[in-house]
Amino acid sequence: MAGEVVLLNFWPSLFGLRVKIALAEKCIKYESKEEDLSNKSPLLLEMNPIIKQIPVLIHNGKPVCESLIIVQYIDEVWNNKSPLLPSDPYQRAQARFWADFVDKKVYVASRKVWRPKREEQEEGKKEFLETLKTMEGELGDKPYFGGETFGYVDISLIPFYSWFHAYKVLDKINIEAECPKIFAWAKRCLQKETVAKNFPDQKKVYEFVAQTRKKYVSA
Amino acid sequence: MAGEVVLLNFWPSLFGLRVKIALAEKCIKYESKEEDLSNKSPLLLEMNPIIKQIPVLIHNGKPVCESLIIVQYIDEVWNNKSPLLPSDPYQRAQARFWADFVDKKVYVASRKVWRPKREEQEEGKKEFLETLKTMEGELGDKPYFGGETFGYVDISLIPFYSWFHAYKVLDKINIEAECPKIFAWAKRCLQKETVAKNFPDQKKVYEFVAQTRKKYVSA
Repeated sequence: MAGEVVLLNFWPSLFGLRVKIALAEKCIKYESKEEDLSNKSPLLLEMNPIIKQIPVLIHNGKPVCESLIIVQYIDEVWNNKSPLLPSDPYQRAQARFWADFVDKKVYVASRKVWRPKREEQEEGKKEFLETLKTMEGELGDKPYFGGETFGYVDISLIPFYSWFHAYKVLDKINIEAECPKIFAWAKRCLQKETVAKNFPDQKKVYEFVAQTRKKYVSA
Repeated sequence: MAGEVVLLNFWPSLFGLRVKIALAEKCIKYESKEEDLSNKSPLLLEMNPIIKQIPVLIHNGKPVCESLIIVQYIDEVWNNKSPLLPSDPYQRAQARFWADFVDKKVYVASRKVWRPKREEQEEGKKEFLETLKTMEGELGDKPYFGGETFGYVDISLIPFYSWFHAYKVLDKINIEAECPKIFAWAKRCLQKETVAKNFPDQKKVYEFVAQTRKKYVSA
């Protein structure tokens, strides 16, 4: 029994997508409620009064916030199927390290690409590619970050692939050419139904990003 | 058997102190190696090649990095004594949320107090106190963040108390007056031997902070 599971989300969110994939891996049925981030719902403000951001997982009326914490929660509650984190404490610490790297380094660098000044944008592009190359080094020749099976680190990074097309068109960042192993890994992840069926359309994401960027970048 | 445990640290580090307290809670014997952060050791660069920061816990030759990840690792490996995270997945997610809040909000705000411009410093002071007041709201009337026993969220926040005296003298931030419950909670934590015996002297921390600030703040 999954109990009542509700996800507060916003469709192009990298972080919301992590939760959707984790729920799909565990075959959990849930209701997804789309938030308007310019006019957040009373439910979102009630369920996440501190950070006031999506995604929020509401399980039997109780909220869990912050995507990586939600994914760990999902893995711990529904622990009878598709383990996402490794069972060994050392391997688990390594998985947490790399997911943390995605948040603190890859994501932060990806946001710099949107900064107002041209030099900052260029610096952001360089840093973003460097962080992806670091991830590529960690991936090595393994099919997934944890080895033979799709897991926590894959879930933390794969949502960025939904924005790659936008970065290519808008910022001339050719991740396929610069990080071929990451690109091949992403294609491999997309062969999984749990990923593919939750992935937003890259063209729709591109249109959303192009619109949103106008608010940030004075090109 | 604890195996061989080595901690790479720098004595005034808020993050290193978390690890020392967690190891003390588990009664683990270890060797602490002091790093010179202006001239990092080959061992630190070998053990944490990605982030290149302390603290690093080296357990039987294998490194674990990032303080909150290290504390979780310690709790999972030495799980027969003094549990630091709650056993219930929901409570565990809440503990992770608040420790994450300490890193993303409390620490980030505390660093703003050092920014070069006077207005930024004032904004930082205000934000720092606001984040501490948020923690105070979460603490409520409980003795510790997790309830009756000292645990993960306490470990994540208590090191900041070692810097309170420096913030009081250097920045006129009177945390005792503004956040009396946090102050009383900190005093309570300091009554624990595992905390007290690892705590750096507040006057020594003040001298260190005063020296370091000169590099950041043009007052």
